[in-house]
Amino acid sequence: MIFVTGAAGFIGSNLVDRLLSDGEQVVGYDDFSTGMAEFVAPARNHKNFSLIEGDLLDTGKLTQAMRGARRVFHFAANADVRFGLEHPRKDLEQNTIATFNVLEAMRANDIKEIAFASTGSIYGEARLVPTPEDAPFPIQTSLYGASKLAGEGLIAAYVEGFGFKARIYRFVSILGERYSHGHIFDFMLQLSKHPEKLHVLGDGKQRKSYLYVGDCIEAVLLGFAASDAPIEIFNLGTDEICQVLDSIGWIAGRLKLSPQLTFSGGERGWIGDNPLIFLATDRIRALGWRPKQSIRQAVELTVDWLDANRWVFEKRK
Amino acid sequence: MIFVTGAAGFIGSNLVDRLLSDGEQVVGYDDFSTGMAEFVAPARNHKNFSLIEGDLLDTGKLTQAMRGARRVFHFAANADVRFGLEHPRKDLEQNTIATFNVLEAMRANDIKEIAFASTGSIYGEARLVPTPEDAPFPIQTSLYGASKLAGEGLIAAYVEGFGFKARIYRFVSILGERYSHGHIFDFMLQLSKHPEKLHVLGDGKQRKSYLYVGDCIEAVLLGFAASDAPIEIFNLGTDEICQVLDSIGWIAGRLKLSPQLTFSGGERGWIGDNPLIFLATDRIRALGWRPKQSIRQAVELTVDWLDANRWVFEKRK
Repeated sequence: MIFVTGAAGFIGSNLVDRLLSDGEQVVGYDDFSTGMAEFVAPARNHKNFSLIEGDLLDTGKLTQAMRGARRVFHFAANADVRFGLEHPRKDLEQNTIATFNVLEAMRANDIKEIAFASTGSIYGEARLVPTPEDAPFPIQTSLYGASKLAGEGLIAAYVEGFGFKARIYRFVSILGERYSHGHIFDFMLQLSKHPEKLHVLGDGKQRKSYLYVGDCIEAVLLGFAASDAPIEIFNLGTDEICQVLDSIGWIAGRLKLSPQLTFSGGERGWIGDNPLIFLATDRIRALGWRPKQSIRQAVELTVDWLDANRWVFEKRK
Repeated sequence: MIFVTGAAGFIGSNLVDRLLSDGEQVVGYDDFSTGMAEFVAPARNHKNFSLIEGDLLDTGKLTQAMRGARRVFHFAANADVRFGLEHPRKDLEQNTIATFNVLEAMRANDIKEIAFASTGSIYGEARLVPTPEDAPFPIQTSLYGASKLAGEGLIAAYVEGFGFKARIYRFVSILGERYSHGHIFDFMLQLSKHPEKLHVLGDGKQRKSYLYVGDCIEAVLLGFAASDAPIEIFNLGTDEICQVLDSIGWIAGRLKLSPQLTFSGGERGWIGDNPLIFLATDRIRALGWRPKQSIRQAVELTVDWLDANRWVFEKRK
């Protein structure tokens, strides 16, 4: 059995569907703080799936739920980079302490394999771009990045100390079906209210990297198969980069809109925003992985999905 | 007023004495879990010092105690690297969560300056030796290192997000007066029971770096004065390295003993032990700092102090 935390989340629910279609038994765990029942509705029709509604801070429930798993995909997180400063405790609890609890529950159940959804945000404002996994020791610029760094550190220490096996994936922003949080979401929400104008945080020239969720999951599933190393860390992203302005053009084009743009100005959209994210993905590419969707395609698939699932905007209000 | 956490600890109490002799008002905070009343006895005779016995997990008490400080030296920690695996929650609580609580108490009191006692252990088994502060992104090998890494990440995020100013010091092992934990302590404790034999963890060839506590504190006090940068990270160590066997020779020589050595064997003394720690200290040296004591002198000063303060062995049992 495979245990997935954040099973009702954007990436987690896509992972669950994929594991089920690969014939795996899956137990999902989610507190529905940002996960959505609709995202696990298809999985719930599957005989090999069960879902436990629970909080990662509830160590008793978590330990019980995990019983019998051979591998854990720890994909639950407070994935909000931008508003970390409004509630610093959230990243500590939902990311750092939650990861500790997952590791302790694994130890109690004698489960050794963990895959962890980390982030390119842990590179802060990287000096080296494209940024490789062994970039110069970074300085954190967000509570989110700091909390994921703490999670990575804990996992690595459990690998060394308790014989765990870990695969850590540092994602760029992920796009695709069930995307329900981030700049495309914000832009489409604005445009649904007033299709003629769009306000952009920063100067719109921030350069970012994105990856389609299906490509992300392909890569995530490769990690354990590829080697017996106790720990491996992989950046996941495309070998492209785009400006926020490119992204806006594709979104508007797909929606057949021509909004007037206004800008908050400045290189960064908010405190801790990174004006340039671009990860070197040589390591995962050496395993034969290639993304199938370009950034533009990923943006358009996301717009199409959000456009067809406007209930998500209501839910997130 | 300057606020010192871990004020009754080995390094913290030496720092307190130095700050008082520099004419500062100091408030110390310690839970006496490893700190010792004897270490703060001299400071308690000083009119500019007050001590609050409290736990860093008691956020109310901590916030109250910190009121009016202009700078915080966060030197409290579970400093035990070796036994982390016996109680993983300890490093999480006493290092990671405690550091978060210190930062939040600072924010509540509008205090912006923090100096943090971090560790060379966060480099794990560094590929680059001597290891500079911007070494390749390390993989953690101990819960202690992971918890200090988490603390550094939190501090850096508060610098970026809340306008804090931080100085982070990554120490090698510190020696000197009030040393009460570590290999010299363990060896002298063994020799006090049976002066004719000594059991050594590992093969004795582990190469380590040490620094005298007085030299450490000189460096720590330089950090804020040297620049206005929001965050600076400094390795602290000597430019020497010694083997555990060298250290044993100096200890035995100072005690006029010739114990028979036995070895547990292996490159590492315990899981997570690092067979080679040697930090590049160019950054702190660029500020004019030089250690005054060699490793050998630091070891001998430590032996002399422990020999004259054998009550410490009783206390630590």
